[in-house]
Amino acid sequence: MGVANPFCGDGMWITLDTGLPRPLYAQIRDQIRQRIMSGALNPGDRLEPSRELARQLGVHRTTVGNAYAELEAEGLIAGTVGRGTFVSPLAETVRRARREGAQERSDSFWDSLLDREPQDDSLGRLVSSVYEPGVISFAIAHGSDELISVDRVRRAIDAVLRREGPALLRYGSSGGYRPLRHYIEGCMRRAGISVEAEQILITSGCQQSLDLLRRSLVASGDVVVSENPTYPGLWNAFQSSGARLIGVPVGEDGLDLDHLLAVLERTRVKLILVSPTFQNPTGRTMSIEARRRLLEIARRFRVPIVEEDIYGWLRYRGREMPPLKALDTLGLVIYVNSFSKVGFPGLRVGWIVASRRVIERLRWAKQHADLHTNVLGQAALDELGRRGWLDRLLRRTRRLYEHKLDALCDALRRHFPPEARWTDPQGGMSVWVELPPGTDAGDLLVKARDRGVIFAPGRYFYFQDVRHHAFRLCYSSLTDDQIERGVGVLGSLLKEEMGKTGKSSTGAAELALV
Amino acid sequence: MGVANPFCGDGMWITLDTGLPRPLYAQIRDQIRQRIMSGALNPGDRLEPSRELARQLGVHRTTVGNAYAELEAEGLIAGTVGRGTFVSPLAETVRRARREGAQERSDSFWDSLLDREPQDDSLGRLVSSVYEPGVISFAIAHGSDELISVDRVRRAIDAVLRREGPALLRYGSSGGYRPLRHYIEGCMRRAGISVEAEQILITSGCQQSLDLLRRSLVASGDVVVSENPTYPGLWNAFQSSGARLIGVPVGEDGLDLDHLLAVLERTRVKLILVSPTFQNPTGRTMSIEARRRLLEIARRFRVPIVEEDIYGWLRYRGREMPPLKALDTLGLVIYVNSFSKVGFPGLRVGWIVASRRVIERLRWAKQHADLHTNVLGQAALDELGRRGWLDRLLRRTRRLYEHKLDALCDALRRHFPPEARWTDPQGGMSVWVELPPGTDAGDLLVKARDRGVIFAPGRYFYFQDVRHHAFRLCYSSLTDDQIERGVGVLGSLLKEEMGKTGKSSTGAAELALV
Repeated sequence: MGVANPFCGDGMWITLDTGLPRPLYAQIRDQIRQRIMSGALNPGDRLEPSRELARQLGVHRTTVGNAYAELEAEGLIAGTVGRGTFVSPLAETVRRARREGAQERSDSFWDSLLDREPQDDSLGRLVSSVYEPGVISFAIAHGSDELISVDRVRRAIDAVLRREGPALLRYGSSGGYRPLRHYIEGCMRRAGISVEAEQILITSGCQQSLDLLRRSLVASGDVVVSENPTYPGLWNAFQSSGARLIGVPVGEDGLDLDHLLAVLERTRVKLILVSPTFQNPTGRTMSIEARRRLLEIARRFRVPIVEEDIYGWLRYRGREMPPLKALDTLGLVIYVNSFSKVGFPGLRVGWIVASRRVIERLRWAKQHADLHTNVLGQAALDELGRRGWLDRLLRRTRRLYEHKLDALCDALRRHFPPEARWTDPQGGMSVWVELPPGTDAGDLLVKARDRGVIFAPGRYFYFQDVRHHAFRLCYSSLTDDQIERGVGVLGSLLKEEMGKTGKSSTGAAELALV
Repeated sequence: MGVANPFCGDGMWITLDTGLPRPLYAQIRDQIRQRIMSGALNPGDRLEPSRELARQLGVHRTTVGNAYAELEAEGLIAGTVGRGTFVSPLAETVRRARREGAQERSDSFWDSLLDREPQDDSLGRLVSSVYEPGVISFAIAHGSDELISVDRVRRAIDAVLRREGPALLRYGSSGGYRPLRHYIEGCMRRAGISVEAEQILITSGCQQSLDLLRRSLVASGDVVVSENPTYPGLWNAFQSSGARLIGVPVGEDGLDLDHLLAVLERTRVKLILVSPTFQNPTGRTMSIEARRRLLEIARRFRVPIVEEDIYGWLRYRGREMPPLKALDTLGLVIYVNSFSKVGFPGLRVGWIVASRRVIERLRWAKQHADLHTNVLGQAALDELGRRGWLDRLLRRTRRLYEHKLDALCDALRRHFPPEARWTDPQGGMSVWVELPPGTDAGDLLVKARDRGVIFAPGRYFYFQDVRHHAFRLCYSSLTDDQIERGVGVLGSLLKEEMGKTGKSSTGAAELALV
């Protein structure tokens, strides 16, 4: 009966093998039963008349008739005189029972094989409520839809597909789409980072960049230093390798360098992870002097630095800071950035700039991880960049987010109790609020969610020495009115509830906190 | 001077800090020098007239004058009376010297930190010559461009962007784009695999699926069984975790089950990796009886199976085989597939079907690896699927590849010496050729490349017990004429050269062998 097409449900396909010891009627019965059980045939679907099927299969009509009779006895199909034979409504019941049985067997098989890893799902559940209608979410650092011109994206993709055709759909380079690497080279130079295209690796975003660095440079047992608090994806990426993370606090001037020095003096450290500009979640930025001192320390101890700069482009005011990589004369800084915070996280495109020795190694890791980053997304971003649309988007983004940041800080001043303190960043996507010690931001979240407001409590950002009394407010995707109402709700709850403790609920979800 | 824009080269940005002990003229000089060195300013670029810059910075004109004078003394800029001050052509020489110096310092820094991992680059170089003009490449299992309607892809993307707008550009679900999961659910049911959407995880292609399985299910020291020869990306994915791979030969009926049994009887195995239909590189397919026996063995030893089915859809003739997953009543099969062999490898979209317990764990791994797969690519494939275009593409693909396979086998019969033997697959993308033992396919490749023909020698597919006398021929992207000429070249070389040995050359490249 030819070849089954898994895309199309083009009729029944039954293959008979006369070489098998199994009677032909049983082969037909089993294959139809299998198709009903798998959902390929559904209640109400009409079977081929037995005469017709017999003809197609080249068997006697009684053979098909016997198969149908047994299926009817099982309750899976039913014949109606003059109308034909159909899959029975009972099949659904049989199917469900069978599916549940299969699921239980499967669960018990895997439960016996897998260690029980208790996963804290509360974060996932929090993040997943971001897109619930009516919820005012300060929880995720994602951009504002109002900035994105879908029309421009459509036109850019249309243009590159017309120009480059199938090349964008076939296998690409592990190093990245060449024109985009050149475009990024230009961006880097303008940011003061001198770089050749061979020192750039395109990745599927910042999370993957961290994962590739972990795979390439960090072995089990190695010590890695990171800001604490930080972005939870960062320690997820590193801890999975069995690396040991040591946290360094973040002060007014970013990473606490005296603390770092103390760590380096007593421990052999493999990498220092740092986000010098608008650090997530605190929004803090290292001064130029602190940057120079950090490089000096890293050079002295011969420890490479991973500089995560995804918020660096989102400066709304104040003095521009060169990235660490622009001040790095020894090549010890590995620079990580992406297009996600400029407005295209769904395309999953980021990049790493590093010494060619490091890029070479990362490219192998990339090939082993997923061959290469999706080519169409890279070509779309390249086209948006070359048309000047990313520049324009970035300018509009800065103006809009500055306005939103002002609205947030203004609302905080009016609504929050005097005991609360918050950072005053000059860019980025978040403000970090600290309540008096003893207050629990998780408790606040439970109450706020009941009133339709969510945010990310501090505990999600600390991988050690958790401070429960802090939380992060992201403002970039909210309207002025949402900011005002959201901060109003939080402020009144804080005034009512400050000082109490509680626990936050748990659940499972599929969106990452970013 | 406002905020620098890393996208735009909008003029010089210089920030002065009167709080620093460094004189203002030196701050100006250093920042301009830095911009020349980084490539933000280039030979011939005009600097602001000193009077104008002084006005912008709010400093005395002499301050800027002193900065310019020092830069001129360094040879970096040059003033021409009446025309202004420009970056000097000499700057390029200084820059190059500096860049080379920086690269050497950087190399030596990293050489002292990184272990020297000797990487065999000959495979990469081979693969990278695939797209060289005039080369007839039997080396990569990629589809034929002539099948892909770029116009349909454009229309599908256009439609989903118009319909869903910015949602396709923002952060997506780690589990995958929901409509695509439902679409895949339907495909799976039609292939006889009963599945709910929660048992499906979308990944960035088959390579990532293998990597996520490795991360989630295999620890350092665990033993994993795989076909040998197999796809090199497979062992790259698993060996990086410190897993121990044991190879099982592939015979006429696919994976050698007696050999497998012997392995399982003496070793605790964590996973069995198998590609039962049109195995890469041999093209071999397991019979239904072998599939049932494999499941029975896996159940007896309680070892999960990873079934890689990316070629399963490319059957051109012969009897349809149910995937192992369709016969799996215990939930021990983890099924891996992708859209890459149907024609869209550049979009990087694949999926895994497994017990919900496994999917849950894989989803965490996915989130840690790269948050989620690019949403636009998923939505485009979903749209192509729902419009019936994937079905049509698949039908055309099967017809075309069947024709090419016939052309290849026909050419092999006419051109190859009688000592050569090859598999006769009913689908897939490759034929596996075996020469008499003692012959080296690598040697043949060196000579063939000189005559513009390349293929992948056997040694790239064996992770143990390498057989140098085999090689793989992929035909799907070649024209009839290329097949005829390519096989003609190989045949005449084989007749001339059979029996000699040699070594293949080395180099570096960025495309993966698939």
